Amino acid sequence: MKPAVIILDMAKGYGWQPGSFGYEMVARVRRLKDAAYAAGAQVLHVHSMRRPTDNLPEHSTMLAGSDGLEVIPELQPIDRDILIYKRYLSGFSHNDLDYTLRTMGIDTVLIAGASTVNTVLWTAADAHQNRYKVVVLDDCCMVHRQTEPPGAHEGATRIIRSVLKAEVLPLDAAIAKYLAPSPPGEGRGEG
Amino acid sequence: MKPAVIILDMAKGYGWQPGSFGYEMVARVRRLKDAAYAAGAQVLHVHSMRRPTDNLPEHSTMLAGSDGLEVIPELQPIDRDILIYKRYLSGFSHNDLDYTLRTMGIDTVLIAGASTVNTVLWTAADAHQNRYKVVVLDDCCMVHRQTEPPGAHEGATRIIRSVLKAEVLPLDAAIAKYLAPSPPGEGRGEG
Amino acid sequence: MKPAVIILDMAKGYGWQPGSFGYEMVARVRRLKDAAYAAGAQVLHVHSMRRPTDNLPEHSTMLAGSDGLEVIPELQPIDRDILIYKRYLSGFSHNDLDYTLRTMGIDTVLIAGASTVNTVLWTAADAHQNRYKVVVLDDCCMVHRQTEPPGAHEGATRIIRSVLKAEVLPLDAAIAKYLAPSPPGEGRGEG
Amino acid sequence: MKPAVIILDMAKGYGWQPGSFGYEMVARVRRLKDAAYAAGAQVLHVHSMRRPTDNLPEHSTMLAGSDGLEVIPELQPIDRDILIYKRYLSGFSHNDLDYTLRTMGIDTVLIAGASTVNTVLWTAADAHQNRYKVVVLDDCCMVHRQTEPPGAHEGATRIIRSVLKAEVLPLDAAIAKYLAPSPPGEGRGEG
Repeated sequence: MKPAVIILDMAKGYGWQPGSFGYEMVARVRRLKDAAYAAGAQVLHVHSMRRPTDNLPEHSTMLAGSDGLEVIPELQPIDRDILIYKRYLSGFSHNDLDYTLRTMGIDTVLIAGASTVNTVLWTAADAHQNRYKVVVLDDCCMVHRQTEPPGAHEGATRIIRSVLKAEVLPLDAAIAKYLAPSPPGEGRGEG
Repeated sequence: MKPAVIILDMAKGYGWQPGSFGYEMVARVRRLKDAAYAAGAQVLHVHSMRRPTDNLPEHSTMLAGSDGLEVIPELQPIDRDILIYKRYLSGFSHNDLDYTLRTMGIDTVLIAGASTVNTVLWTAADAHQNRYKVVVLDDCCMVHRQTEPPGAHEGATRIIRSVLKAEVLPLDAAIAKYLAPSPPGEGRGEG
Repeated sequence: MKPAVIILDMAKGYGWQPGSFGYEMVARVRRLKDAAYAAGAQVLHVHSMRRPTDNLPEHSTMLAGSDGLEVIPELQPIDRDILIYKRYLSGFSHNDLDYTLRTMGIDTVLIAGASTVNTVLWTAADAHQNRYKVVVLDDCCMVHRQTEPPGAHEGATRIIRSVLKAEVLPLDAAIAKYLAPSPPGEGRGEG
Repeated sequence: MKPAVIILDMAKGYGWQPGSFGYEMVARVRRLKDAAYAAGAQVLHVHSMRRPTDNLPEHSTMLAGSDGLEVIPELQPIDRDILIYKRYLSGFSHNDLDYTLRTMGIDTVLIAGASTVNTVLWTAADAHQNRYKVVVLDDCCMVHRQTEPPGAHEGATRIIRSVLKAEVLPLDAAIAKYLAPSPPGEGRGEG
């Protein structure tokens, strides 16, 4: 087994700020990154990038060249990570995520980020359809919009579990199972 | 606007039989096909095809070369339709669906079939991410497994509506809006 | 190493007939198939499939549902093979070839068929870019059009060799290196 | 018709320097960019980006984060252009080039850059297979390796012409045909 950690849309353009809705999840994602480092597993930040030519109706805070594309300070630095932009909703949308995972020999992806009903759901589906084993980190994902009804997160993880046959685990259980610290000098990421 | 109708997994291998769970939906999908013909819109049957080499855990009733791949009798004949196999869950999975729609100049897809929490959901997401306008036919889709909890269909269509910004319409409304009969001699499908 | 054999466009629609231009290559491709079977390697026939809706200028002998799509009699039967349609020029064009190879764990592709300046060239490039090791069978490929200038085959194989870093080998050498007969009972294809 | 200009691998990592082999082509590509601006056509710089995890045998001057990825000074600034990285040889390799062209409504691509036997050839093939009209700028492309035999450029453009049915035009003819200056205030790029 060779796992990688995919962190979705934890970028400035999504408004993660101390005190903002759902901000407490950021600390858990930070723990996830540290656990991945300790285990020698590759971390990939994947977030949206829009171009002015995209011909989309809504205004975007994730335009190419804008600050919105930067990983939030709490998850910096990113010098050991891989940064990939997705062009639409899924982490695999019109980019090199599959190619990059494949050339590294990754067979398992641990998915964190927001929102569960959006990018997490589509990324889990695409990862599964590209035949990676999928693990979604239950408490490192959320529905990052207050307008969604209660139970939206659980509804999406239920689909992920029953349809995609993916594991949905809390952070601690996922670390124990997939990100056990590797012995010194045995980085798993470089395979 | 140039719509096409995508009918997902209405194949023998999925066990659609008079009296079987959800069978009453078949008559509505039949009406949808007839409406598409009357409107001159292309119908595409898209269903799963597995190969013995796929290395999947579960047994499949949709193996290449098997009867399971045939469109169910109620939706025959298919001589005016396009038949495309999807290799995994989404209608766009590792096949020529996007290419075929694109070369026809299709800009809008009307999606029917089962299950709402599975292929309908992923197909809607991929169609949206490939920038087709997406319309899901509410009463021509269902969760085709009795083990799913009540509300599963509604949970999925809520995501389709709120996240994918797609329309979710009952058959009659969709026909009125997207499949109005074309004047004689003006097939829209051949564009 | 787990090789598979890809045979491109050896279908009725391309006019392979006793006495026709280049027909002598068919016997060598037959030998290749037999060698693959003896070695337990998977054979994949990949050829073009066009749809009436494709909006292409030229008339096609490879329309969906037509006889042109059948593998030529000399390479029948195909019951142990996988048959995949490519939608345009490359063997990987808008289909499940990559997915199918990947799920089988194939890492090396041996390419035969015609024409060297067309589908062979693009298939080799796509296989290389999807990170398969590429071997092109020099005397099992040809430029299957008499109007091409002399040296066209060699020009294409030179690009395949120098740019794609692929091996270009005659059939006998390729069999010796990649398709050595497997001991009885040890089919490699089913891995 | 809505053309875009694709400039391949004119990046620092490829060693374009005054006096270097083939450097005189740079001035013509500069003219091409200016003509595209005058015509209101979008310019896209597309060049290679490798990651340390790519597991490729050769050393790369095009690593993510390195100076090699910068467009050469002669073709700066790039503030009106779109910059896209290709992950391997073709300009369409594992990235958002097709998506970006498609969302802009581009139907015609004018291709320049190097090398003709490598990225130009594969990019032309992929553009054609994604059904763009392809125009290759004969004197804005070259084989950017002195070790290739004479006639390599012509061999590749012959394939582009005869197999891909693409136009191969010198810069002046291409400007006259596809990049005629648009009237003031009528940018074509923003469509």
